[in-house]
Amino acid sequence: MGLDHVVMDAPALQAFLTNVFPQVHRDFVVEEVTDEGAVIRLVADEKHLRPGGTVSGPAMFGLADVAMYVAILSRIGPEALTVTTNCSIDFMRKPVAGADLIAECRLLKLGRVLAVGDVLLRSQGMEGVVARAGLTYSIPPKR
Amino acid sequence: MGLDHVVMDAPALQAFLTNVFPQVHRDFVVEEVTDEGAVIRLVADEKHLRPGGTVSGPAMFGLADVAMYVAILSRIGPEALTVTTNCSIDFMRKPVAGADLIAECRLLKLGRVLAVGDVLLRSQGMEGVVARAGLTYSIPPKR
Amino acid sequence: MGLDHVVMDAPALQAFLTNVFPQVHRDFVVEEVTDEGAVIRLVADEKHLRPGGTVSGPAMFGLADVAMYVAILSRIGPEALTVTTNCSIDFMRKPVAGADLIAECRLLKLGRVLAVGDVLLRSQGMEGVVARAGLTYSIPPKR
Amino acid sequence: MGLDHVVMDAPALQAFLTNVFPQVHRDFVVEEVTDEGAVIRLVADEKHLRPGGTVSGPAMFGLADVAMYVAILSRIGPEALTVTTNCSIDFMRKPVAGADLIAECRLLKLGRVLAVGDVLLRSQGMEGVVARAGLTYSIPPKR
Repeated sequence: MGLDHVVMDAPALQAFLTNVFPQVHRDFVVEEVTDEGAVIRLVADEKHLRPGGTVSGPAMFGLADVAMYVAILSRIGPEALTVTTNCSIDFMRKPVAGADLIAECRLLKLGRVLAVGDVLLRSQGMEGVVARAGLTYSIPPKR
Repeated sequence: MGLDHVVMDAPALQAFLTNVFPQVHRDFVVEEVTDEGAVIRLVADEKHLRPGGTVSGPAMFGLADVAMYVAILSRIGPEALTVTTNCSIDFMRKPVAGADLIAECRLLKLGRVLAVGDVLLRSQGMEGVVARAGLTYSIPPKR
Repeated sequence: MGLDHVVMDAPALQAFLTNVFPQVHRDFVVEEVTDEGAVIRLVADEKHLRPGGTVSGPAMFGLADVAMYVAILSRIGPEALTVTTNCSIDFMRKPVAGADLIAECRLLKLGRVLAVGDVLLRSQGMEGVVARAGLTYSIPPKR
Repeated sequence: MGLDHVVMDAPALQAFLTNVFPQVHRDFVVEEVTDEGAVIRLVADEKHLRPGGTVSGPAMFGLADVAMYVAILSRIGPEALTVTTNCSIDFMRKPVAGADLIAECRLLKLGRVLAVGDVLLRSQGMEGVVARAGLTYSIPPKR
């Protein structure tokens, strides 16, 4: 188990999300498992939007959270019970109306009980960072 | 404008949410405007739940965010453009399956451009804190 | 081990700080162990001050951190290796020049491996909150 | 004023720190102004160390804070009154005893009133990230 040892690839992670989160799996596309973590896309859909057509705060939080979850699982395998313990998120710019949101997660620590990473969110095709999140996950003890 | 000067009461705030967030206003009940801030309830509904019947992380984030928004508006009036700039949230306990979530927001600072507060989330009728969030909002300049 | 079971009182905690942190123990006074956590005072001293005579950001961070540490130890006993994993701190008002700072820590969760709490900092004798911090500590496994 | 427009270089920033923070300027070396922000070094000195010889939490907080301050000033010029409003810091690994700490700050937003960025801290010469901080600064209105 280490930051540089990938044990699940993008299709395997996508299939896992579909099984574990049947309610939301269509919202998220696992774009890529990277050297640093993973890239996830939020499909801009009516239910994530606020008046004005921009993605809501909770939808951005949810995307950052899923991006970190997927990045961790890409390294430790299908541990559904891995849970968020802390997230600190800064909202910096309004997302572009109607555009998908891209989350780039970077794992910084993958310990025995805690994983720490951060996530940058951008509107697809744009330079400016829309939001940034730092997250901590608790990893369940091995059975 | 001050922490102890209430300018909108619970029914006025509820009516405002209905107008401004038609997609989500049914999810949130403004229970009370308090001396410290406000109390908001999230109605436990299928769409907020994760497998197992507990409220999802993004739904908890959304509740904390709305609680802070409502607490600020109770003091400054209907400024729809007031926006979240930062939220740091700690998840501590699993919410009780099927129970509504109660958010107690405490305003700590209401400045000219920034408002700061925190929120405790509990499953209705329970003692233990499910999650705690600290939030900062940016208040638009007066026109 | 629980939030409501105190195992070290204020003098015992003060003595412990003196042993474990010989460099800084004079800076901090354990004022009280409370039902919710603990109250700690930072003695305003030249070395904590910024030009203008107000307590520096790192000194405020240090006070919040020690307040949480002391509150945890008051419940679990002298576990020196308990360490901070996350702190999110909001700075809201300038502290009063030359005044001691009072930190009120409230423990919200005391789990097997993680403890979560928050801290309000005020200049002694003042109402307004100077800073607020949410902290997570990692508790070492029992030997 | 923009992320890519540098108005103060490393020697000018070092001279500014010396003037504004006479108490701490010897602790920090402005290593470099980068395309993304700035790199600052904390000189490991007795007064930053905890028993065991590792840099203390408050000293790491102080370093992250100064790194962000310097990165902002490199783009906006000598605005001493720019102040921290929020910092969320994750402590991940013990720093190496006796080694200097290197802080790499990346500015993510430089707005009219708020600047947002993050900082990675590493022990000099080491790969693993010791701590990560996200910070928000408030920029005073132009006179």
